[in-house]
Amino acid sequence: MPITICEVGPRDGLQNERTLLSTETKLALIDRVVAGGVRRLEAVSFAHPKRVPQMADAEQVMAGVPRGGGVSYIGLVLNERGFERAARAEVDEVNMVVLATETFSQRNQGMSVEASLRAWSRIARMAHDAGIRPSLTISAAFGCPFEGEVSPDRVRAIARQAVDAAPAEIALADTIGVGVPTQVTELVGAVRDIAPGVALRCHFHNTRNTGYANAVAAVSAGVETLDASAGGIGGCPFAPAATGNIATEDLAYLLERMGVATGVDVRAAAATGRWIGEQLGIEAPALVGRADPFPR
Amino acid sequence: MPITICEVGPRDGLQNERTLLSTETKLALIDRVVAGGVRRLEAVSFAHPKRVPQMADAEQVMAGVPRGGGVSYIGLVLNERGFERAARAEVDEVNMVVLATETFSQRNQGMSVEASLRAWSRIARMAHDAGIRPSLTISAAFGCPFEGEVSPDRVRAIARQAVDAAPAEIALADTIGVGVPTQVTELVGAVRDIAPGVALRCHFHNTRNTGYANAVAAVSAGVETLDASAGGIGGCPFAPAATGNIATEDLAYLLERMGVATGVDVRAAAATGRWIGEQLGIEAPALVGRADPFPR
Repeated sequence: MPITICEVGPRDGLQNERTLLSTETKLALIDRVVAGGVRRLEAVSFAHPKRVPQMADAEQVMAGVPRGGGVSYIGLVLNERGFERAARAEVDEVNMVVLATETFSQRNQGMSVEASLRAWSRIARMAHDAGIRPSLTISAAFGCPFEGEVSPDRVRAIARQAVDAAPAEIALADTIGVGVPTQVTELVGAVRDIAPGVALRCHFHNTRNTGYANAVAAVSAGVETLDASAGGIGGCPFAPAATGNIATEDLAYLLERMGVATGVDVRAAAATGRWIGEQLGIEAPALVGRADPFPR
Repeated sequence: MPITICEVGPRDGLQNERTLLSTETKLALIDRVVAGGVRRLEAVSFAHPKRVPQMADAEQVMAGVPRGGGVSYIGLVLNERGFERAARAEVDEVNMVVLATETFSQRNQGMSVEASLRAWSRIARMAHDAGIRPSLTISAAFGCPFEGEVSPDRVRAIARQAVDAAPAEIALADTIGVGVPTQVTELVGAVRDIAPGVALRCHFHNTRNTGYANAVAAVSAGVETLDASAGGIGGCPFAPAATGNIATEDLAYLLERMGVATGVDVRAAAATGRWIGEQLGIEAPALVGRADPFPR
């Protein structure tokens, strides 16, 4: 089975880097990613510009992305106002985030888990009406920076409530990079049981060097899509040494060499990873672009 | 099943770092590693001091290691002269390396694969006679920097010849960090079929971010021991950006959180990883020591 790599560098990656990039540079990143074979991207967030200044130019970015060729653009939305902006900007998909714990939900979204699930239902309905695919990400599903361990039952309960709104896809996110493969197998299995037939996606950070092992576990568990960012950018601005998302180029190398087709050109992706690191003035955490090509 | 983590930082790690450490600092590293719960270490190499100057003090290191407490020290040997030095230094085990390809074998050991297999047989006999456990590492089993892809049949043929000398253990090494989990499953299965009852060990480098996924695959395939280095040190001196071995602390975090006991104290290991990075004047590639403890 092929795997879709969903490029989240333009959104989750850049949102968590210290350096603010111009709309032009963001579009150059998206152009490179698409040229390298990626066909699905989380391109922007429609969060309030005061809360997430890195994404204030979401409309301008969406106006400039290369359309056609089967490329699908996701906009992150957290409320109806965000959805309306996303719809006007002609995203192909919207992704809404529900946090797995109360503390993180209050800190990140200023509302309870219950309230964000109600917002998800409203957004999903609006999306279906507008012909936009709605997906839901359950964040901090593998552990919470405030509450610690997250019970799989908590993730199950959220998935059960979310499924009524007919998500096109449910994603499990290891937001702080604490998860391990056994958790992946358990949580993916749990969500598949609750939402049979719904597409599944996983989102891993490599903060503790478990991200790629988790990706392999997710593929084994039958997940269709994995998030990754060019260069592995997205280190949290409050923990400068922490790495970000798993890297598109390293994930593509790993999967392609395992015989799992991704459609991504590993060398093009590695070049993009190095390039975005230069734009951000950092050494991107991805490793394939630093190593000798193999096989030559 | 618990997994043994074999600490290779003092040998494979330090041998491939630019900075030469004093015997005292090497012994401080070994003391820290043992205090952190590791019970098996590749401590030194008895290669010719002119070829591997980093290991010229092998005898002095072995004279100073903390003995007892069930700790087993491995010395790397490449020929009979090396074995004699190792035996005099009272190692508990010797490890011999056979390269999987002719080109790498000539470049690394100045002899053919066939010749190194004959040397292995002689060394294994001497070891058994001396009551020292002999293990064999098949290096570059997952790919060769000179010849590219390595056929599993080549690894099978080497294992078949090596098994006559009654190895206490066979190790599969991804010397240049190109391997992926599907290869691990295939090669471990192949060697287990050829050498039933012989303990198996795997040695991974994280050069292309596949090392930890490979470690999980090795555990699933029933391998008893995994090599790792404190801090993940061992980046090749000729490719400064490349990472070294998988890191002891990151591997211990991954396995312990999966419910696989290692006996290693993750926080102590992370502190040792940061410490050895400071001694070498580098930022060690391990990630657990840079991240927030989880769970707190």
